[in-house]
Amino acid sequence: MELSAGLTLGYIPYLNCIPFFHHLKENGFHGEFITGVPSELNQMLQQGRLDVSPSSSFEYARNWKKYLLLPGHSISSFGRVKSVLLFSPVDLSELSGREISITGESATSINLLRIIFREFYNLHNVTDTVPDLPIETLIRERKPALLIGDRALRLAGQLPSGMQVFDLGEIWYQQTGLPFVFALWMIHRNVLDRFPLELAALGEQLQKSQRQLMADLYPVAKGVAEAAGLDIETVVNYWKTIDYQLEAEHLQSLQLFFELCVKYNLLDEKPELNFLQ
Amino acid sequence: MELSAGLTLGYIPYLNCIPFFHHLKENGFHGEFITGVPSELNQMLQQGRLDVSPSSSFEYARNWKKYLLLPGHSISSFGRVKSVLLFSPVDLSELSGREISITGESATSINLLRIIFREFYNLHNVTDTVPDLPIETLIRERKPALLIGDRALRLAGQLPSGMQVFDLGEIWYQQTGLPFVFALWMIHRNVLDRFPLELAALGEQLQKSQRQLMADLYPVAKGVAEAAGLDIETVVNYWKTIDYQLEAEHLQSLQLFFELCVKYNLLDEKPELNFLQ
Repeated sequence: MELSAGLTLGYIPYLNCIPFFHHLKENGFHGEFITGVPSELNQMLQQGRLDVSPSSSFEYARNWKKYLLLPGHSISSFGRVKSVLLFSPVDLSELSGREISITGESATSINLLRIIFREFYNLHNVTDTVPDLPIETLIRERKPALLIGDRALRLAGQLPSGMQVFDLGEIWYQQTGLPFVFALWMIHRNVLDRFPLELAALGEQLQKSQRQLMADLYPVAKGVAEAAGLDIETVVNYWKTIDYQLEAEHLQSLQLFFELCVKYNLLDEKPELNFLQ
Repeated sequence: MELSAGLTLGYIPYLNCIPFFHHLKENGFHGEFITGVPSELNQMLQQGRLDVSPSSSFEYARNWKKYLLLPGHSISSFGRVKSVLLFSPVDLSELSGREISITGESATSINLLRIIFREFYNLHNVTDTVPDLPIETLIRERKPALLIGDRALRLAGQLPSGMQVFDLGEIWYQQTGLPFVFALWMIHRNVLDRFPLELAALGEQLQKSQRQLMADLYPVAKGVAEAAGLDIETVVNYWKTIDYQLEAEHLQSLQLFFELCVKYNLLDEKPELNFLQ
C-alpha cells in the first residue's frame, strides 16, 4: 500500500508559472498540486513536505544538499525579464550611499541586485531594507526600490514621473553575455526512490505542456490577464520574453552567479549543480 | 482645459473585485484604472492621488473626514465570507492567552477578529502579531493564524490536518444577525467638484456591470481561476457568496462595528457615514 497516489508538486499562482501548469495534467501528470506563495513552497520543499517544485535559484544554493535539479527547465531571461525591476530616480551609478527598499519575497532577485552594484558598478555602500510601506508607495515618492513579479509588471506599465526603471535580467545579460536563471525545478532527495518513473516522466510532460501553450497563448492569457490586473498583450509578451530552457549557457550563468554570491559573502560555499539522472 | 480625462479609479486585482470591474468600461466608465494592492491604493486615496476606490471599511473609519461613500455598493457577507478565516488547532474559546499570527494586509479583518474575541468570547488576552514566516507555514505547524483573500480560499481547500477553520463573516452574523461590511466604495472629497456627473453615473455603471457578470459567471471564472490557483467552481461559488449590496442592515452593521472599535480602543472616535448625494 502506498502512502501517496503520486508526486506532490508546488503550484505557484504567478503569471510566469502558468506555462508549466496549464496543460500538465492532460500530458500525463497524475500527482497533486499544492498551491502556495513561493516562500511557503520553499519551506515545504526544504522540509520534504513537497516532492518537487519550481523554486528560486538562491534557495537551491542555500540548501543544495537536499535537492536534485530537474534537467532542461527553468525560469530565465536572455536579456530583459520585465518582472524584476529596480525603480530609481537616478542612474544606478549615482545610487552610492543610498538605501534600496525591497520586499522579502525574493532571495534570488535581491542577491542579483547586490551583485550588480558590487561587481558591475563598483558600489559597495548601497544597502537594502524591507520597509513598512508598500513598495509601490515608496516608488511613487521617488525612492529607489526593487519590485518583482506581477506587481513589477503592473507598475512598469504606469511608471511614475521622474522615475527610471532598470531591468535586472537585461543588466546581467549586458555585463556577462549570459541568460540569468531566476528559478529552477527542484526535487527533494527523499522522493527519489519512491517515484522514479514519475520523476523521469516529468521533464517531458513539462516540455509538451509549454509547447502546447506557446502554440496558442491568447485564450489562456485572456482570462489570466484580468485576474492579474494586466492587459492581454502584456501577458502574452511576458510569456514570450521568459526563457524556460536550462542549457549549457544557463548553467554557466548559475555557476558565475553563485561564485559572485560567495565572493560577496552572500553564500558560505559554492553549491554543486546536481541533476536527476 | 482639463487636467484629467476622467476619474481615476482604484483597481484591486483580487478575485472579489472582478465583479465590479469586468464589464465597467462597456457600461460607460471612461476614467482610468490605477492597479495596485489594497494598502497602496488606500494610501493613494488618502493623499488624493486617486479619486475613487473600493477600500477597507476600517480605512474609512480612520480617515472618514476625507471621504464620501458611494451609495449602494460594498463587499460584504451575510454569513460565511470564505476568504476571511481564522485557522486554529482548538476552538476559539480555548485561545485564551494565545498569540494569533496575522498578515499586515487587512486592517478591517484584524479589528473584526479582535472584536470577536473581546465582545463575543469575553477573551481579553488574545494578542496578534505579524510574523517573519509565511502565514501558511505557521498554519501547517498548527499555530493559530488569520489569513485573508485568495490565499485563505486556497488554504481552506487543502486544510492541514488537526486544524479547524473559523469564518469571521459567519461568526459576526451568528452573533449579531447582521451582514459584515469588509469594504466600501470611497470618494476623496477633493474630486467632488471636478467630476459631479461622472460620480453620479458610477453607481449605476457598477450595478449594471455586476448584473451582467452574475448572469454568466463561468466564462470569466474560467480564466481567472487559473491565475488565482483555484478551480472554477470555487471561484463561481465565492462570487455568489459575496454580498455586494449596501442597504440599511449593512449600515446598521457598520455602525455597530465602529462602536465596538471605539469601545475597545481600536478607533478614537466613531465616524459619521457620509454619502455622495
